[in-house]
Amino acid sequence: MPIPAEAFFLDRNTGIPLQAQLRRQIIAGVLEGRFRAGEKLPSSRHLATHLGVARVTVAQAFAELVATDYLTSRDRSGHFISDRIEPLPPTPDPSAAGPRFDWSARIDGRFRATERTDRIAGWRGYRYPFVYGQADAALVDHTAWRDCAVRALGRREFIPLTSDLYGEDDPELIDYIARQILPRRGIRAGADRILLTLGAQNGLWLAAQVLLGPGRAAAIEDPCYPGLRQILAPTGARVTAVPVDADGLDPDRLPPGLAAVFTTASHQSPTGTAMPEPRRRALLDRALRDGFAVIEDDYEFEMSFAGSPSPALKARDDAGAVIHVGSFSKTVFPGLRLGYIVADREVIREARALRALVLRHPPGVLQRTLAYYLSLGHYDAQMARMRVAYARRRAAMTEAMTAHGLIPAAETDRGGSSFWMRLPEGVVSARLAADLRAQDVLIEPGEPFFAHPPDGAGFCRLAYSSIPVERIPEGIARIARALKA
Amino acid sequence: MPIPAEAFFLDRNTGIPLQAQLRRQIIAGVLEGRFRAGEKLPSSRHLATHLGVARVTVAQAFAELVATDYLTSRDRSGHFISDRIEPLPPTPDPSAAGPRFDWSARIDGRFRATERTDRIAGWRGYRYPFVYGQADAALVDHTAWRDCAVRALGRREFIPLTSDLYGEDDPELIDYIARQILPRRGIRAGADRILLTLGAQNGLWLAAQVLLGPGRAAAIEDPCYPGLRQILAPTGARVTAVPVDADGLDPDRLPPGLAAVFTTASHQSPTGTAMPEPRRRALLDRALRDGFAVIEDDYEFEMSFAGSPSPALKARDDAGAVIHVGSFSKTVFPGLRLGYIVADREVIREARALRALVLRHPPGVLQRTLAYYLSLGHYDAQMARMRVAYARRRAAMTEAMTAHGLIPAAETDRGGSSFWMRLPEGVVSARLAADLRAQDVLIEPGEPFFAHPPDGAGFCRLAYSSIPVERIPEGIARIARALKA
Repeated sequence: MPIPAEAFFLDRNTGIPLQAQLRRQIIAGVLEGRFRAGEKLPSSRHLATHLGVARVTVAQAFAELVATDYLTSRDRSGHFISDRIEPLPPTPDPSAAGPRFDWSARIDGRFRATERTDRIAGWRGYRYPFVYGQADAALVDHTAWRDCAVRALGRREFIPLTSDLYGEDDPELIDYIARQILPRRGIRAGADRILLTLGAQNGLWLAAQVLLGPGRAAAIEDPCYPGLRQILAPTGARVTAVPVDADGLDPDRLPPGLAAVFTTASHQSPTGTAMPEPRRRALLDRALRDGFAVIEDDYEFEMSFAGSPSPALKARDDAGAVIHVGSFSKTVFPGLRLGYIVADREVIREARALRALVLRHPPGVLQRTLAYYLSLGHYDAQMARMRVAYARRRAAMTEAMTAHGLIPAAETDRGGSSFWMRLPEGVVSARLAADLRAQDVLIEPGEPFFAHPPDGAGFCRLAYSSIPVERIPEGIARIARALKA
Repeated sequence: MPIPAEAFFLDRNTGIPLQAQLRRQIIAGVLEGRFRAGEKLPSSRHLATHLGVARVTVAQAFAELVATDYLTSRDRSGHFISDRIEPLPPTPDPSAAGPRFDWSARIDGRFRATERTDRIAGWRGYRYPFVYGQADAALVDHTAWRDCAVRALGRREFIPLTSDLYGEDDPELIDYIARQILPRRGIRAGADRILLTLGAQNGLWLAAQVLLGPGRAAAIEDPCYPGLRQILAPTGARVTAVPVDADGLDPDRLPPGLAAVFTTASHQSPTGTAMPEPRRRALLDRALRDGFAVIEDDYEFEMSFAGSPSPALKARDDAGAVIHVGSFSKTVFPGLRLGYIVADREVIREARALRALVLRHPPGVLQRTLAYYLSLGHYDAQMARMRVAYARRRAAMTEAMTAHGLIPAAETDRGGSSFWMRLPEGVVSARLAADLRAQDVLIEPGEPFFAHPPDGAGFCRLAYSSIPVERIPEGIARIARALKA
C-alpha cells in the first residue's frame, strides 16, 4: 500500500536539518519493517506541502536515499521502497538504551494472575477436537448472516445505527429477546429489565461488579466454568466453592452471609446435570430469606434436544432475586460477542451505568444484524439444524463410549454439547490431555474447572460441538486406547 | 411473526391441568402484549409433540380460546391471536404482589452515580445541532463500509473470525494500525504494544483499572472530557483536577504522589489548545522522575487540517511512560466502538488480561471489516472528505461568529471540530443551552466539563462536526440573539 504523507513529521526545535530528519524517518521505517519493499512514497510536491518545506528539500532527501539504495526511482511514477535493504530484526522497544519507566511499581498484575493458560488457540488444526464452545462452521449459515448484515447496513438503517447510542440498546433486538427468546425459558420481562452485554462473560462480569467487592462473599459451584473464577478473583470478594452432586448445587451447603450465588441450574457447567424443582424452590426461598442474589448462567438452553424443555430458574423468580445471564455466542457463533442479562430494574439500571462507563454499548450494527437474523427465522433454523446435528453426534458418542466401556460421570438427559467423564483410578487428566494432543485428539482436562485443581485430575470433559460426527468413533477409540496405556 | 412452540412450558408438579396451563400461558402472552394480533400459533400437532401431551389437549385449549375470543381460527391455515383483546397496560413486575428481594441492600449505586444526564438522545431532530462527536451521515461512506463487511463475511474469512479469539486481536487490523495509523502520529510500536479496545472510552477505562484504586492518586485536566471523570470516580482513587491555561496542562501544577496523569496534549478537550513542546518534555521528564504514568487521549488527531501536524506525546516517549489512547469512533463512525491503546508491553499484557475477563475481545467481524476499510483506502478517503468539509464549516463558523462579535476563548490553530467559547458576563451556560434548545439550536453547556460545574457556567462548546455548513450562519445568529437577550 502507498505510504501516506501523514507518516512524516518534522521537528523544527531540534537543530537537525529538515532534509536529514526526513531521510532518517524513511530509513527508520525501512529498517523497522514499517515501510516494505515496493511501497510507494508520496510525491515530493505533496510531501513538501504537507511538511511545509520547499519541494527541493524533499527531492534532495529522496535523491540521497536512491543513491544509498533505500529507495528506487521509476520515471514518471515516483519513488518506491527498494527491495535491497533487509529490515532489522525487531528491537524490543524504540529506545531500549535510555532510562525506562518502571511499570512493575505501578502494576500489581492482579488481572494477569487470572489469565488462563489452558486454551488451545490452534484447535482447528487437530483432527479430533473434543473441545467446547467453538462454532462448528458447518452449522452456521454464514450467507444468511451476511444478508442480515447487508440489510442492517442499508443507508436508511445506517444513520441511526452509526450514532453513539450512549447507554441504549437496539429496541428491535430487545423486543425480539423479550417476546421470543425469554418466553422459551419461561421468563416474562419488559425492555426495562433487559440489558445487552458483550457475551455471557461480560454479563457475569457486570453482575459481579454490581454486587461484589472487598468484604462481600459469594458462592460458586465446584466444579464450575473457569471464566467465572477469573471474574471473581479481582473483585476482592471472599469466594466459597460449593461441591455439586448429581442434582447440581445443594442450597443447604451454602455458607451464611453471602451477597451472591452463581449457578448453572439448568445445565450444570461442566457436569451437565439439571437442578430439580425442589432444590430450585429451596434456593430461591433462601435467597429471599438470606438476602443474596442468584446469578443464573443459562449458557446452553437452546441445546435441550434430548429431553423435555425446562424453564429457567428466573422463570420461578417471583421475588426478583435472580439475575439471568444469556448469550448468543454459544449458539449463533462465538466471535459474535452478544448476550444479555435479565434482572430487576434496579440491577439493570446499575449495570447499564457500569456498561456505559466501561464500553458505552455493544456495536449498533451487530445488534441490528442479530435482530434481523432472529426475526427472519434464521436463528430458529440454525437451532433446529444444531439440535439434529448434536443429537446425531451425541448418539455416536454414546455408541462409541459404550463400545469402549466409557461411562459418563453424570446423568445428562437433557442433551447439551458435552459429556463429563470420570477417569480410571490413577489417570491424571492434564497428562492424559497432553498425551492425546500428540495423537491429534483434544480433550478438556478436569483440573481448570475446580477451585482446587488437583480435585479435577480424575475428570475430563468431552464436547461434541466442534467435531464432525464421522470422526467421533476414531476419536473415542484413541481416548480409550490412551486410557488403557 | 409466528409464535414458536418453544414459548410454551408445562409444569407437571403443580396439579393444575395441563390444558388449563396452556390456556393460561396463551392468555398471559396476549394480555402482556408478548403475543400480538394476527400472530400465528404453532399447529396443535407440533405443539403437542413439543409439550409431550396428547394432540387433543392442545386442540381443546385452542377451541376454548377461540370461544373466549383470544384466538381466531382460519380453516386449514391454523390459529391466530385475535385482534379483539386489548393487551393490559404493562405491570411493574411479574408478581408485584408477593415479597420482593431488597436490592437497595445489595447495590450501592456507585455506577449509577456517574451517569450523565446532559446527553440529548434525539439530537438529529434539531435543526441547528452544534453537538460534538456524532457522525455526520453525509461524510460516512456507508456503501464502502458495507462492501468491506460483505468481504469480511465471505465464507473463507468467516470461519476463523467466528471463533472465540480469547484474548487475541485480528492481526490484519493490528498490522495496519502499527504500519499506517501510528506512524502518522510519530509512534513506532510493534503488535505486542497495541491492544484493541471498544472505543476510546474503553481504552481510558482499561488504563484506569490497571493503574488506579483506593490509595492511589490521579490528575486530570480541568475542564476535561466528562466521560473520564465518570471512569475515575468508582476506582476509589483520589483525583485532582488541574486547571489548564492557554498551553494546556502545566506540569508544574501537578501535585506530588501521583500514579497517573490523564491529558489531551495534542488537542485539549474541550478547549482545543495544543501543549507546546517544552511542556511536553517537562511532563515526560517528570513522569519518569516521579514515577507516574501519562495517559494520552489522542481523540481527534486526524482532524489537524488547519495547521501543520504535530506528533503525539507518545512519539517522544523514550522511557515508555505513556499510554496512548486512540479511537476510530470519532472518525469512521461513533457506533463502531473500536479503538486501541499503545503502551509498554507490561501495560498491554495486564490490560489484555483485564479485557479478556471483562469482555474477551472486540467482535471479530467488526475488526476484519475495519481492517478492509482501512487497507482499501476508504479511511484515507473519508478523512480527506472530512478535512475538507470541516475546514469549510470552520470557515463558516469563524465568519458568522466574527459578524456577531463572538470570539473563541482559546486559540485552536490546528483545526478540530469545535470552538470553546467564553460567554458574556452573567450568562449561565446551562440556562442558555435550554433556551436555545427551544429555538431548535443545540449547544454544549460548559458545566459538565468542569470538576466544579459552576466553573463552567461562563463557557460553552460549539461543535461543527454534525451540522451542515449551510445552517451554520442562522444557527450562530440564533445563538448571538440569545446572548443579547
